[in-house]
Amino acid sequence: MNSEKKPVSLAVIRRLPRYYRYLADLERAGTTKISSKELAALMDLTASQIRQDLNYFGGFGQQGYGYNVSGLKTEIASILGINQSRGMIQLGAGNLGRAIASHIDFATSGFDLLAIFEVDPKLVGSHLGGHQILHVDEIEAFCRQQHPIAVSLCIPEEAAEDLVPRLIACGIKSFLNFTHYDIGIHYDNISVENVYIGDSLMTLAYKTAALEQ
Amino acid sequence: MNSEKKPVSLAVIRRLPRYYRYLADLERAGTTKISSKELAALMDLTASQIRQDLNYFGGFGQQGYGYNVSGLKTEIASILGINQSRGMIQLGAGNLGRAIASHIDFATSGFDLLAIFEVDPKLVGSHLGGHQILHVDEIEAFCRQQHPIAVSLCIPEEAAEDLVPRLIACGIKSFLNFTHYDIGIHYDNISVENVYIGDSLMTLAYKTAALEQ
Repeated sequence: MNSEKKPVSLAVIRRLPRYYRYLADLERAGTTKISSKELAALMDLTASQIRQDLNYFGGFGQQGYGYNVSGLKTEIASILGINQSRGMIQLGAGNLGRAIASHIDFATSGFDLLAIFEVDPKLVGSHLGGHQILHVDEIEAFCRQQHPIAVSLCIPEEAAEDLVPRLIACGIKSFLNFTHYDIGIHYDNISVENVYIGDSLMTLAYKTAALEQ
Repeated sequence: MNSEKKPVSLAVIRRLPRYYRYLADLERAGTTKISSKELAALMDLTASQIRQDLNYFGGFGQQGYGYNVSGLKTEIASILGINQSRGMIQLGAGNLGRAIASHIDFATSGFDLLAIFEVDPKLVGSHLGGHQILHVDEIEAFCRQQHPIAVSLCIPEEAAEDLVPRLIACGIKSFLNFTHYDIGIHYDNISVENVYIGDSLMTLAYKTAALEQ
């Protein structure tokens, strides 16, 4: 085992949630240990890819035994920081906002969804997925009290341009960004994860064209 | 200019939609040409990164002139295959399905959304974003007539396990997959683009923890 931390590329980090999901499924199914070969077959990877990915973090596997499923899952959770719970708010309770607040498990992803903000007076005051919908003008007062660090932006691009500086002034540092507003370009010392569904669709167009060749 | 095609990594392909969006914005704003340095400043990249990405496809830029905005946009559209229009269907008209069908511009991403399928009898027969909502049991008959090649899966994971084999039997080859069902593992000769919002949230947790260090 190697206790020195090597720099880990974001490409490896991005593969960890998938490992985490598979390990959580295995744990739920009662599997306590798994070899890199078995895990590779399950995830359609090679055993050497798996060993390479997990070696970045010091291994966790024992020769001839394999991985302890719960142990490895806990380690990955710790590496990703999802064993913590950081306050998050969401902006937008439209179709996308409703989908995110209802279907995404914030708690197992390291966040605690505290409240949802909207401009539409028809939605303000109601609840969504057990969360209160407040008016966007309450953001500042809410943040002074609850100190959320992250936001899920389910709003139009134009609204994001106006609201992002307000959020940053409130101490928000992390953005799950569904808008095309390129937040990372405009601000330093923040973290942004863009979910660009239109870009994924364009990439699918490329892959579809490649299939036809 | 190099007319030989080098193999292009998917990492480069995944960057092209962002170039495309910036070039489309520039074109809309009336900009006809741009240097790699100007484009780099706009996109928060280095000029050499831009030249490296675009050189994969033979360049397009002229020394001392820069890029022709419309020309480069057209080339990128052609590389991505989004200048074509492939028939697509969507499964699911719930919150996520409504968000996708209302907000995503399928036409500029190389697809033509033909119809949406649902199991909920309250939704079947109505319209969503100008598209007809049909019952899932009509998929086979619809595909025989309209020959869609792609699908957007806005349904629960369990439903995906049942429906994906039916879709493949209908000739569907490309999947925009919002479910955690790992389609690519189970079938060959298909293309899949996964949009795993929960994984993005976990990656954001990692980036947030990294900010705090």
